[in-house]
Amino acid sequence: MKLVPLGDRVVLKQIAAEETTKSGIILPDQAQEKPQQAEVIAVGPGGVVDGKEITMQVKEGQKVIYSKYAGTNVKLENEEYIIVKQSDILAVVE
Amino acid sequence: MKLVPLGDRVVLKQIAAEETTKSGIILPDQAQEKPQQAEVIAVGPGGVVDGKEITMQVKEGQKVIYSKYAGTNVKLENEEYIIVKQSDILAVVE
Amino acid sequence: MKLVPLGDRVVLKQIAAEETTKSGIILPDQAQEKPQQAEVIAVGPGGVVDGKEITMQVKEGQKVIYSKYAGTNVKLENEEYIIVKQSDILAVVE
Amino acid sequence: MKLVPLGDRVVLKQIAAEETTKSGIILPDQAQEKPQQAEVIAVGPGGVVDGKEITMQVKEGQKVIYSKYAGTNVKLENEEYIIVKQSDILAVVE
Amino acid sequence: MKLVPLGDRVVLKQIAAEETTKSGIILPDQAQEKPQQAEVIAVGPGGVVDGKEITMQVKEGQKVIYSKYAGTNVKLENEEYIIVKQSDILAVVE
Amino acid sequence: MKLVPLGDRVVLKQIAAEETTKSGIILPDQAQEKPQQAEVIAVGPGGVVDGKEITMQVKEGQKVIYSKYAGTNVKLENEEYIIVKQSDILAVVE
Amino acid sequence: MKLVPLGDRVVLKQIAAEETTKSGIILPDQAQEKPQQAEVIAVGPGGVVDGKEITMQVKEGQKVIYSKYAGTNVKLENEEYIIVKQSDILAVVE
Repeated sequence: MKLVPLGDRVVLKQIAAEETTKSGIILPDQAQEKPQQAEVIAVGPGGVVDGKEITMQVKEGQKVIYSKYAGTNVKLENEEYIIVKQSDILAVVE
Repeated sequence: MKLVPLGDRVVLKQIAAEETTKSGIILPDQAQEKPQQAEVIAVGPGGVVDGKEITMQVKEGQKVIYSKYAGTNVKLENEEYIIVKQSDILAVVE
Repeated sequence: MKLVPLGDRVVLKQIAAEETTKSGIILPDQAQEKPQQAEVIAVGPGGVVDGKEITMQVKEGQKVIYSKYAGTNVKLENEEYIIVKQSDILAVVE
Repeated sequence: MKLVPLGDRVVLKQIAAEETTKSGIILPDQAQEKPQQAEVIAVGPGGVVDGKEITMQVKEGQKVIYSKYAGTNVKLENEEYIIVKQSDILAVVE
Repeated sequence: MKLVPLGDRVVLKQIAAEETTKSGIILPDQAQEKPQQAEVIAVGPGGVVDGKEITMQVKEGQKVIYSKYAGTNVKLENEEYIIVKQSDILAVVE
Repeated sequence: MKLVPLGDRVVLKQIAAEETTKSGIILPDQAQEKPQQAEVIAVGPGGVVDGKEITMQVKEGQKVIYSKYAGTNVKLENEEYIIVKQSDILAVVE
Repeated sequence: MKLVPLGDRVVLKQIAAEETTKSGIILPDQAQEKPQQAEVIAVGPGGVVDGKEITMQVKEGQKVIYSKYAGTNVKLENEEYIIVKQSDILAVVE
């Protein structure tokens, strides 16, 4: 059972705070809309979304920083995911 | 008697909480705008909607996660349906 | 004397609650912006509306579900009508 | 002395309540944004308005239903007029 | 010293109330966003404004009705002017 | 050290009140969003900004009236500047 | 480990107040949405963003003034960065 995103959506899995610290990113806890580090789990096909041609630029397995604003939380088989639009992903962490 | 959606609308039938649990998705009850798992009942023809060409990407019988925001509840012959725009469907569950 | 809608407008006549129940749709009374079942009385010519080409997809005599939001109530010769844009019509009931 | 509307504007003259009743339309007095019956006095040239090609579809002398929202009241030589955009006209009464 | 408007802007000079009454237009004093009669003093070159081709349709010396909303008041050599976009001009008074 | 504006931005230097009075423009002090007279210090290259082709129409050294709304104040080497988009400039004073 | 911005995003590193003073820019501390001086650390590839072709105009190492509004703060390996869209950069300081 897996989530197959539509259009320009991307399924992310948040990297836990401990793991985040290990990878060197520390996110302030008190911020209301702080960016989030997450792993890309699945990427939509892109194509014409809301009348605009969207090319997907992230790939499965990448670590990304996303804006916590527009994401939607989903729980599937006891794992929590976040579904965001690609435009809510700010940067890839390499 | 059935609902035939116009444009980019999709008729969904929410999957009951019990059934949802069986399929492995648990949705927190207290969330105000939590995503929803539902079955696709009918799909509009797509075409030019609000000046933009829309190709329908979901099919009857698919299980989908949608954003509870924009949907409209309709009761027809004692069954409840939700009519959403395709862009409110976030992912297909396979 | 009749209403001839402009552009993408559609003139609807709400189906009374009793009649609605007979046709199998029950709409909760307390909802503030519940969808509505109505009959299509007159359909605008479509064409370029707000810079976008609109093709009319509903026809006189159809039963439709519309979103109560944007409609405008008009009383003509003691009959009440609702004028909506076609995009406020969610589905046809067949 | 007369009002020559620009672009997609239309000059209307509201039909008095008495006259309205005679023509069969009764409009509730207490409604805040009730539709209005009016006669078309002058029609702008249309053309490109806000980057969109607008073709004027109403004519001088027609009776129309308009949405009271966006109109602007003007008094010229003791006559009151309303200037609306054509898109605020919902239907022609024939 | 003079004001040369940019783009689709128009420099207007409000016609005083007395003068207004003589010309036959009476504007209610208490209205918050009442239309205004004014003389066109200078007209911008038009052209592409905000990505849209704008053709100027008013001329110096015309009397116009404008919506008081978006105008900006300027005082130059003890004369007061209003700078509006052409789209805020509703009609020409002929 | 100087400010080189990007896109359709323009660097302005406000003309002091005294100087303003001499040049004949008097601006009321109490207005919340009063227009401002300023000198153009630097002009961005224009080009495609937010998907729209922008041609710069003001030049260094011109006196302009701008809307105080969208500007951003910057202090560089003890001089204060305002950075605005060209569309916030209403007119040139000649 | 580094941040690779997507689309029209730019990674900035704020220049400390002391350093700012040395370079001649003094920013008032009490302003809520004061512009900020920062160094460009990484620049996204540009391309089609939200349906519009964006050409990147800033380069790594440049000092820029940006609007504090839309930026997102990120901490990576104990360094703080701000990720902004290029359109939030007002000017380059040369």
